[in-house]
Amino acid sequence: MEQVDSMRVVYSPRHHLHDPDFEVTGGRRIAGYEVAARVESIRHALESDPDFSFEAPGTFGIGPIRAVHDAGLIAYLESAWQDWRARGTGASAIMPDAFLHPGARAGMGDAPAPSSPCGQAGYYCFDTATPIVPGTYEVTRVACDAALTAADGVLSGERSVYALTRPPGHHSARAVFGGYCYLNQAAVAVEWLAGRTHDRIAVLDVDYHHGNGTQQIFYDREDVLYTSIHADPSRTFPYFAGHASETGAGAGTGTTFNQPMPAGTNDAQYLEAIERTLTRIEAFRPAVVVVSLGFDTYGQDPIGDFALTTPVYHEIGRRAGALDLPLVIIQEGGYDVANLGRNAREWLRGSAGLAPAFAAEDGVKAIGS
Amino acid sequence: MEQVDSMRVVYSPRHHLHDPDFEVTGGRRIAGYEVAARVESIRHALESDPDFSFEAPGTFGIGPIRAVHDAGLIAYLESAWQDWRARGTGASAIMPDAFLHPGARAGMGDAPAPSSPCGQAGYYCFDTATPIVPGTYEVTRVACDAALTAADGVLSGERSVYALTRPPGHHSARAVFGGYCYLNQAAVAVEWLAGRTHDRIAVLDVDYHHGNGTQQIFYDREDVLYTSIHADPSRTFPYFAGHASETGAGAGTGTTFNQPMPAGTNDAQYLEAIERTLTRIEAFRPAVVVVSLGFDTYGQDPIGDFALTTPVYHEIGRRAGALDLPLVIIQEGGYDVANLGRNAREWLRGSAGLAPAFAAEDGVKAIGS
Repeated sequence: MEQVDSMRVVYSPRHHLHDPDFEVTGGRRIAGYEVAARVESIRHALESDPDFSFEAPGTFGIGPIRAVHDAGLIAYLESAWQDWRARGTGASAIMPDAFLHPGARAGMGDAPAPSSPCGQAGYYCFDTATPIVPGTYEVTRVACDAALTAADGVLSGERSVYALTRPPGHHSARAVFGGYCYLNQAAVAVEWLAGRTHDRIAVLDVDYHHGNGTQQIFYDREDVLYTSIHADPSRTFPYFAGHASETGAGAGTGTTFNQPMPAGTNDAQYLEAIERTLTRIEAFRPAVVVVSLGFDTYGQDPIGDFALTTPVYHEIGRRAGALDLPLVIIQEGGYDVANLGRNAREWLRGSAGLAPAFAAEDGVKAIGS
Repeated sequence: MEQVDSMRVVYSPRHHLHDPDFEVTGGRRIAGYEVAARVESIRHALESDPDFSFEAPGTFGIGPIRAVHDAGLIAYLESAWQDWRARGTGASAIMPDAFLHPGARAGMGDAPAPSSPCGQAGYYCFDTATPIVPGTYEVTRVACDAALTAADGVLSGERSVYALTRPPGHHSARAVFGGYCYLNQAAVAVEWLAGRTHDRIAVLDVDYHHGNGTQQIFYDREDVLYTSIHADPSRTFPYFAGHASETGAGAGTGTTFNQPMPAGTNDAQYLEAIERTLTRIEAFRPAVVVVSLGFDTYGQDPIGDFALTTPVYHEIGRRAGALDLPLVIIQEGGYDVANLGRNAREWLRGSAGLAPAFAAEDGVKAIGS
């Protein structure tokens, strides 16, 4: 595989405007994991590497988002903070405490959308990890613009473009958000690409967590293959989706491919799973692959329980790049800030056919290739 | 209306074993409102009044609970604490942080019940106000036994019996719990009474909050009338049920009667609503009326926003008693501990055709009659 010109990285510093400083886990309020330093760690690692070049996202408007998300959810995310402030609670972030639950409405039909800010929060959000703060809507819109800029780049002939975004997006479904995610920028890019190419699009989701939102959005779609390698939801978030038995519905039957993995999953096990996934993607013959790129699979990640090492990210990226399909690479999770930049750099270098950086720097042994 | 012998009060001190000391509201961990002192306030007020006599609950077993609740929910509540401890988190209470949400599964069919304690929490519970602690299951079972003891009392010829229970129950639906509630003792009593009488049963829910769980359980039932006067769910918990447009389904069409009320609802407005409700109950010609009795309608309640005064509780009780139907009275909410005993005493005295106590004590002016 030949080396390419520098890889384009789409980045905006506006992500700093989304700065919730907490989440609630099991009833305990803790410092949030999804912090601005995550993206800055990656930015620093890539800025020091001449094989990457940075650019600002373009502006794509609300149209591509409306194509994916429920109008009520979009309107809520847009107005939630102002409505909350108008209520005068004084709280620095919106977080629901009572949730629309199917069991509570069983036999009663759909609930009407609530008009109060507290009810709306639990109507549109499914967890206590995803606070809305003043800058949230602007930043999730910027993330969508970045993903679309990357998508536009590959349609213009780039081999791959990387959208360095936060917050992540893959847990947000058509009409409900959560898991640190608001709008689903990967799904927005997929839909936009499907509309432009009139061809098949595949998703390679390698975040530690199952991308339940992306799966839900495309579950019945024949033209979108969703693949994910992730922690078994029977032990971890998002709990209620991501099983191997979920393979799609209707025209989309067979276009969802989940590989739930055990705690302690190591490099070798992960590479076997990647091989199965890439075989599926190749067989699908997509025009473009959208990568939901997470590094919470790393052995030191404070949330995950996998055991991946830095060298394997280069190898995973290399194999994804070896598909020889355009890659729209979108940053999702990964919470070990200290190593996030290094791991992302290796993945991206691998995907671009570039040699690992770690060998020279760290003397660690390469995997595969 | 003639004065009766002393009213039976079913009470067990075992409620102290359920002692969560917190809840989470809008992402903030605060002292819980649903505390043992609530029931003790009422106990003290009634023990000093010779018109009430205390007794312990009988034992009715799991059968009447299985008739109302999903087997998975019951098994979860029974084993949750031990499973949680076995996981070794060290947390003093179970509280979910990610919830089964219909939007997250739209088009994907039902989610399998999760096997992990964290997933189960959000599969069976819909809010962050309802922690499970070591004594929770025992105490919610005792509350059911107390409600059934009261139900058994009226079938044995008592005019009315009062189950002085906590935690409350009316927010718990067939397969999901929340709102400080675990098992739904009012629903358990209703179902048991329906089975014994082979006749119609009515629910008079006068808690400040809509009894969404009780409504859900009996929504399609022709033989159970659910009535509720409550804060409009468009502004407050439980948010997703309790609208006037919800009137039942299938054979139960017309057997749900909700009166959502505005903030600041006062004695006169409330009495008008009660009159409409009692007219509906009379027309239904039930064999027994199960009262879900809450005092969070009180003007000083820290959760509610109604403006009811102590005298009106005597009048509401008096009018309920004037139905001249057996009353199974079950304690639900009410969080102004200082006045809870007094308000409950007045309601119960009124329902039993007894004169108000407050006139002599406080010189406050009676309402109505």
